[in-house]
Amino acid sequence: MKNKTVGLIINQQKMGAVETGNYLRTRLKELGWQIDQEEADFVLVLGGDGTLLQAARDLAPRGIPVLGINFGQLGFLTEIEVHDLDWALERLAAAAYRIEERMMLEARVQRQGRLLETAIALNDVVVTKGAFARLLPLDIFVNREHVSTIPADGIIVASPTGSTAYSLSAGGAIVPPHLEVLLITPICPHSLTSRPMVVGPEAEVMIRVGHYEGQAMLTVDGQHGVVLEPDDLICVQRAGVRARFIKLTDRTFFQVLRQKLKAGDRCNV
Amino acid sequence: MKNKTVGLIINQQKMGAVETGNYLRTRLKELGWQIDQEEADFVLVLGGDGTLLQAARDLAPRGIPVLGINFGQLGFLTEIEVHDLDWALERLAAAAYRIEERMMLEARVQRQGRLLETAIALNDVVVTKGAFARLLPLDIFVNREHVSTIPADGIIVASPTGSTAYSLSAGGAIVPPHLEVLLITPICPHSLTSRPMVVGPEAEVMIRVGHYEGQAMLTVDGQHGVVLEPDDLICVQRAGVRARFIKLTDRTFFQVLRQKLKAGDRCNV
Amino acid sequence: MKNKTVGLIINQQKMGAVETGNYLRTRLKELGWQIDQEEADFVLVLGGDGTLLQAARDLAPRGIPVLGINFGQLGFLTEIEVHDLDWALERLAAAAYRIEERMMLEARVQRQGRLLETAIALNDVVVTKGAFARLLPLDIFVNREHVSTIPADGIIVASPTGSTAYSLSAGGAIVPPHLEVLLITPICPHSLTSRPMVVGPEAEVMIRVGHYEGQAMLTVDGQHGVVLEPDDLICVQRAGVRARFIKLTDRTFFQVLRQKLKAGDRCNV
Amino acid sequence: MKNKTVGLIINQQKMGAVETGNYLRTRLKELGWQIDQEEADFVLVLGGDGTLLQAARDLAPRGIPVLGINFGQLGFLTEIEVHDLDWALERLAAAAYRIEERMMLEARVQRQGRLLETAIALNDVVVTKGAFARLLPLDIFVNREHVSTIPADGIIVASPTGSTAYSLSAGGAIVPPHLEVLLITPICPHSLTSRPMVVGPEAEVMIRVGHYEGQAMLTVDGQHGVVLEPDDLICVQRAGVRARFIKLTDRTFFQVLRQKLKAGDRCNV
Repeated sequence: MKNKTVGLIINQQKMGAVETGNYLRTRLKELGWQIDQEEADFVLVLGGDGTLLQAARDLAPRGIPVLGINFGQLGFLTEIEVHDLDWALERLAAAAYRIEERMMLEARVQRQGRLLETAIALNDVVVTKGAFARLLPLDIFVNREHVSTIPADGIIVASPTGSTAYSLSAGGAIVPPHLEVLLITPICPHSLTSRPMVVGPEAEVMIRVGHYEGQAMLTVDGQHGVVLEPDDLICVQRAGVRARFIKLTDRTFFQVLRQKLKAGDRCNV
Repeated sequence: MKNKTVGLIINQQKMGAVETGNYLRTRLKELGWQIDQEEADFVLVLGGDGTLLQAARDLAPRGIPVLGINFGQLGFLTEIEVHDLDWALERLAAAAYRIEERMMLEARVQRQGRLLETAIALNDVVVTKGAFARLLPLDIFVNREHVSTIPADGIIVASPTGSTAYSLSAGGAIVPPHLEVLLITPICPHSLTSRPMVVGPEAEVMIRVGHYEGQAMLTVDGQHGVVLEPDDLICVQRAGVRARFIKLTDRTFFQVLRQKLKAGDRCNV
Repeated sequence: MKNKTVGLIINQQKMGAVETGNYLRTRLKELGWQIDQEEADFVLVLGGDGTLLQAARDLAPRGIPVLGINFGQLGFLTEIEVHDLDWALERLAAAAYRIEERMMLEARVQRQGRLLETAIALNDVVVTKGAFARLLPLDIFVNREHVSTIPADGIIVASPTGSTAYSLSAGGAIVPPHLEVLLITPICPHSLTSRPMVVGPEAEVMIRVGHYEGQAMLTVDGQHGVVLEPDDLICVQRAGVRARFIKLTDRTFFQVLRQKLKAGDRCNV
Repeated sequence: MKNKTVGLIINQQKMGAVETGNYLRTRLKELGWQIDQEEADFVLVLGGDGTLLQAARDLAPRGIPVLGINFGQLGFLTEIEVHDLDWALERLAAAAYRIEERMMLEARVQRQGRLLETAIALNDVVVTKGAFARLLPLDIFVNREHVSTIPADGIIVASPTGSTAYSLSAGGAIVPPHLEVLLITPICPHSLTSRPMVVGPEAEVMIRVGHYEGQAMLTVDGQHGVVLEPDDLICVQRAGVRARFIKLTDRTFFQVLRQKLKAGDRCNV
């Protein structure tokens, strides 16, 4: 078994993450593994789902798998708790793991015929109005066909992985991570007939920002923002790259869902 | 061009359908076409979406395509209006049409280990409580994995075609007809965390009816019902057969959707 | 302090309720209290919220207060747990309690101009279609003004107390028990523009059952049913009587709500 | 009949409003009426619901009634169309109208124990996150009792009049304008158990803004904004003043609702 080269990403704001990072460096040295982000066989991420979203976007283009060690609340994306760290290193050393790939989204922003920005997202690409509470007029197209014009707070284009995040809170359906679809979920549409939609993996979802006095914004995974202007076009498609997660456990999507959503709790008589 | 053999299904309760049926018989005789349901090249259906649902279920196993002539409200499934009938016959004579296939569902009801009933559905397979308003306890499984236990009025397993029917009124997402998925939409779940779900075309959705004082029922496309007993298992999967619709127009799914749902109508200031 | 006369209602199907009932009879004898349902100063109810709903309906016309001892899941209506029983008897003996009144609903069913049935409800009056899944056409009137015609699974008219029961699972708002309003909540409306409504305490809500092939039903508090016919009118108003609950604790509505609904549980990243 | 003093508010951006304003000035001169905003018996507002919201807030403290002449889409608040203008002037001259009062909201923003700002609203007081799509943690209190802590896009406190505006698009119930209640409607709550709530007219709803990296904002009637800081307290109550609208027609709330919401349009089979 050849020695590994490992990357480390540590969210320093999470309590205990720095200390665990130090312990981990000691253990990796004992194992004779290199620490090198650039040449990494895989990257260990100490943080919550937010840290892992960032890492997944950064590493997906290079195909490097990530393993999330949870320092947040129960995570959809983090794989293990900190007390499983030694066990996890044994499994990694023995190559006793599998890689789970997750579909990502690619968003392109076009302004006046020119490509302004490209971004990839693991959870979602979101167009929203600014804080000042007025309606943002949005034109929605699927495969260049006009689907609807809605005045709304915004719109979410989510991946299957993102179906349990922002899209869910706006009324979108839950989709298991391996069903390759795009979810189009309007946020507070002022048309009562606008409903969440699910389209196929080959679909191109295009959003045109209407004329609007306030500031509209594109947000990628709730973390990276681009200020939009009227007539900007945001095209969202399945990305060519995929997030790669190291799986050590048999925890299924539905198991995580039940834990996270407390599914099944009754409300009354 | 060889002479066609045509089937005719007429919903006698729709105003004008019988008269149009008589006219149609005359025209078919003039064209030298046979009328024969059993040997039909295709079946002309004079009625609304309900009549077409029934026809689609009946004819799918034999692969016979249907053409719906609308005698109801604007239909998702009916292809033409009655004033387009002559034009439609010309197109059929010239074989100037295409066939659109739609995914169907197959439901199997198992009672005490024995297969009680098998049915196919174009829109949906629905398990509901009786009229007496008490909660029906339901266990939901996807691919034999337990997903959740919910007390609810019922649950809908819908095809993409059914996504704009009952499932939509219970909060399910809209899915274009060619995206092969199954929609699992709870009806008035008394768990606040139960949300609509979309799963892949290979998924087996299984529902176990819990112990419940009233009468539970399985309904297929809102038309065919089976009385259920506690511990009955209802397995729903993509059917081996497909509904086949004759398409003469370029009307897209989103066009119909906009018309039917009046999508885009605003509600206020 | 004069001796009390106490009524006892025991849900024999709840585990432990019969034994506690026997204990309670012994204690009441020791206290020198009479057990007499007809002449009761108050009625002790051993069961869950369902048992208490029934008791409240039965006793409201005679103004007799009830005290619920919980043998179900955490209840919105039951006041104490079984281990608080002795403490509760002391408080009752010392008259150290207050009475909380709850608004009730009165439903009148009119058929062909004649009053068919009158019922009172603490939670809700519900009109639903039968188990066979077809749409029930309903006309809704408020104060004799036609509000809308909706094809739906049914409609709920709920009291504030019922706002956390069936109405909530159909998308209705939560209303504190002392805000005197009626909630009108459609069940799976097939009109996308039908929304839950809240009207004032003086409002008369009238529902006319449309023509419908299946069996429609009126249900009171999910417990008492009446089979409906087309053109039946169901008028729902605030009842002249009120449910009276003995309050021994300071538990507020919002405290119960947080416990029952697990309000505040997050769902994701 | 004494001559009237009339105020004029004209939304110059609405097509035709300026021309109608000129015509109106001529007609008022012919009638011998004064035009004086400060001493007005009533104010004529040429614009849409937005213009009328602004006018209502400005004029409510002085008790001056407004009459909206619609230059927008069908309005909930505007009373007449431009072609009814002459008829309206006759009715005003003959004092053949009534005044409809609408409950308003008062919002007070407290920062570090000091009153930062006071505002009144006709529709709603809204606390939202900034455009950058992260969750805003909010603590909700009713009458100083903590109700829940929710991470959300924001929260709406609406008046009955506002129940058909932003609150409706976020899932709130519809309330007729004369039922004096406050609606508390969370916007995209990331807790699945957060539901819209309706509380009584005496309730004080308090929102505490949590610690949050982005910019939070208070918006009044979607028109007037205040930038918020962590730990700011926003108290919303029924205002001491009321909006006063001149009513010339018998158009009821439910009639407007049916027109605006196209209530009753079906969606499918």
